[in-house]
Amino acid sequence: MKFGGTSVADLDRIRHVAARVKRECDAGHQVAVVVSAMAGATNQLVKWCNDLDPLHDPREYDVVVASGEQVTTGLLAIALGKIGVKARSWQGWQVPVRTDAAHGKARVESIEGAALLADMAAGVVPVVAGFQGVAPDGRISTLGRGGSDLSAVALAAALKADRCDIYTDVDGVYTTDPRIVPRARKLERISYEEMLELASVGAKVLQTRSVELAMKYRVRVQVLSSFEDRPGTLVVDEDEIVEKLTVAGIAYSAEEAKITVRRVPDRPGVAAALFGPLAAANINVDMIVQNVGADGTTDMTFTVGRADLARTQEVLATLKDSLGYQSVLADPHVVKISAVGVGMRSHAGVAATMFRALAEKGINIQVISTSEIKVSVLVAAEYRELAVRALHTAFGLDGPEPPAKEEEE
Amino acid sequence: MKFGGTSVADLDRIRHVAARVKRECDAGHQVAVVVSAMAGATNQLVKWCNDLDPLHDPREYDVVVASGEQVTTGLLAIALGKIGVKARSWQGWQVPVRTDAAHGKARVESIEGAALLADMAAGVVPVVAGFQGVAPDGRISTLGRGGSDLSAVALAAALKADRCDIYTDVDGVYTTDPRIVPRARKLERISYEEMLELASVGAKVLQTRSVELAMKYRVRVQVLSSFEDRPGTLVVDEDEIVEKLTVAGIAYSAEEAKITVRRVPDRPGVAAALFGPLAAANINVDMIVQNVGADGTTDMTFTVGRADLARTQEVLATLKDSLGYQSVLADPHVVKISAVGVGMRSHAGVAATMFRALAEKGINIQVISTSEIKVSVLVAAEYRELAVRALHTAFGLDGPEPPAKEEEE
Repeated sequence: MKFGGTSVADLDRIRHVAARVKRECDAGHQVAVVVSAMAGATNQLVKWCNDLDPLHDPREYDVVVASGEQVTTGLLAIALGKIGVKARSWQGWQVPVRTDAAHGKARVESIEGAALLADMAAGVVPVVAGFQGVAPDGRISTLGRGGSDLSAVALAAALKADRCDIYTDVDGVYTTDPRIVPRARKLERISYEEMLELASVGAKVLQTRSVELAMKYRVRVQVLSSFEDRPGTLVVDEDEIVEKLTVAGIAYSAEEAKITVRRVPDRPGVAAALFGPLAAANINVDMIVQNVGADGTTDMTFTVGRADLARTQEVLATLKDSLGYQSVLADPHVVKISAVGVGMRSHAGVAATMFRALAEKGINIQVISTSEIKVSVLVAAEYRELAVRALHTAFGLDGPEPPAKEEEE
Repeated sequence: MKFGGTSVADLDRIRHVAARVKRECDAGHQVAVVVSAMAGATNQLVKWCNDLDPLHDPREYDVVVASGEQVTTGLLAIALGKIGVKARSWQGWQVPVRTDAAHGKARVESIEGAALLADMAAGVVPVVAGFQGVAPDGRISTLGRGGSDLSAVALAAALKADRCDIYTDVDGVYTTDPRIVPRARKLERISYEEMLELASVGAKVLQTRSVELAMKYRVRVQVLSSFEDRPGTLVVDEDEIVEKLTVAGIAYSAEEAKITVRRVPDRPGVAAALFGPLAAANINVDMIVQNVGADGTTDMTFTVGRADLARTQEVLATLKDSLGYQSVLADPHVVKISAVGVGMRSHAGVAATMFRALAEKGINIQVISTSEIKVSVLVAAEYRELAVRALHTAFGLDGPEPPAKEEEE
């Protein structure tokens, strides 16, 4: 059971978490718990480090920020003891959770589960500090922001846990953003591959690295709400999903910008001459299309992160003479919409369905890219909600109309 | 160099501490630093533990509260790095500072200084978390409130330091409380024995246990201000004090209450029958006098901590029949005033000087007790200031009149 910062934000919520843990124990399960720092604590600690020296030693940064999780482990152990659940806190160095030496963004190298398993066998709930470990030189390390999910999955793998429950402030993974599509449905199950594609296109439920790790070690992950009392979404191996949806979800990312380089001479090596310098400038290029013209030139269109747009234009400007292109067009008003589903592997026609649904709504597709389990299109930003709804309906994902809700302030 | 909570209360003060450390390094000294938690942090952490469960597991309490010092070590190391001083934080378990298993009030058993000395030899300043250590089972332990002084003295002993400088919010040890006697003088040197007697009678400069430890390992301790830039008071072996004052200081304690048990039958074993049950009830009895009457009875007078007064009366009430005393008189309006000085060993007449000085002011002495280097008297509370001033003058401790100060708000 892993509880994030908002789930342990104050003493009342820590008591609530303790009650949740007790219920699992009472149901006969052996449970280990991973906790984040109390919401806000990490931000305060990070700010102190940056205020003292923006170029601080990351080893000392780790010492300071890891204290946040330490506090939560002790408090939760006390709260569990208070309601009669035997519990014991574990810091990263005590387990130990061994990491590499990349302080501030360390990778877990191994976790020794023996001591925790002995605790659990003796009826004691281990409460483990997420986000932290111990580096090869014996100093405290941290896994980078959001790393508590990673801690939980790695620990579940080390303990060979039946399941890794990630308690958070959403109650599962949806077929799309419920704020756009009220008839979006919560998925009972989703495969690692689908979860990864959804995470990388903007569904912020689970950190990408933790999904990768879960897939690697086949850890069954459940995403569920710490505030509501119902099952969440199970992230599992594709084989565990009996009825595979052709499309499991529609995701969107509004963090994109489109660049078109007009009338580049169409000769071998021109793509390398264009994208090499962008890669060297650490600019991540996503979708790429190339239209060959009749006059020996070509138009290259691609997307970059919107934050990188200005820098991309700078790099392109330095290439104007060597590449010999005519002009650069930039458009930040775009959105990438993706349909994701492992069922695509065996079902043809997903792209065709997608294009037809968008055409019916009069939405022009600017760029298309596909992978084994994903089709993405770039459209004008103003079509975001319309396109998401059209595709959600086209792929049969709509659930029943939600009951009318009282207006909340 | 040890800095307490008020000295590291915020980032500005931590920067100030870093500058102090740099100055010592620049002067060619090899320095190790011990720090407390930022002022207020420990209280918050303790409150959380108590709010969750007043009967919390002390091992988890230690995990929670030790995080306070951890934060300060990292922040000070960063602040030192910023001004070009190489530094490295050390937690109790990293040094390691080994303690016994008495969580929440552990005793230091050993400190391995090798790694710290290697750091220092390499020009790196170790910044060590005070107040904490590691218990035999590998869990975090704390030394009890005020334990950072103890950490500093123990570390100084382990490193065979030339001196242990305790930076605090007073600038040294005075001949008496300067708020009562403006002509009180700061002592350049004071012996361990004198410091212990002064600490035990209410001068709250250094924690008693840390003075005991300094005496045991002959650690030279300097008490000085972290806010003002001048020498403090050196606490040293008696042999290092050339000009021994007969009386080095006048201390007072207003935390006492006087009890008189009237007309106890004067037979062997009566004192044991009286004080045995009080000791069993964990009540600490301090000064004791017994007046033998002519009628086969005796009056027993003694002092207890004022907080224990009610419980003392309860215990005595249960003894009325077995002891056969007449009545119990209780007086909380008393103050204990003590003259302390190692010079008493070779100078007779200290008690006589004390009694004469008090008599001249018309102050009645209620109880007297003496030790090798201390004479204490109990007087009515209303005479506190008058008695302290009279004794300060009588023993020749008055310094020059302080310069007139601007009134401060």
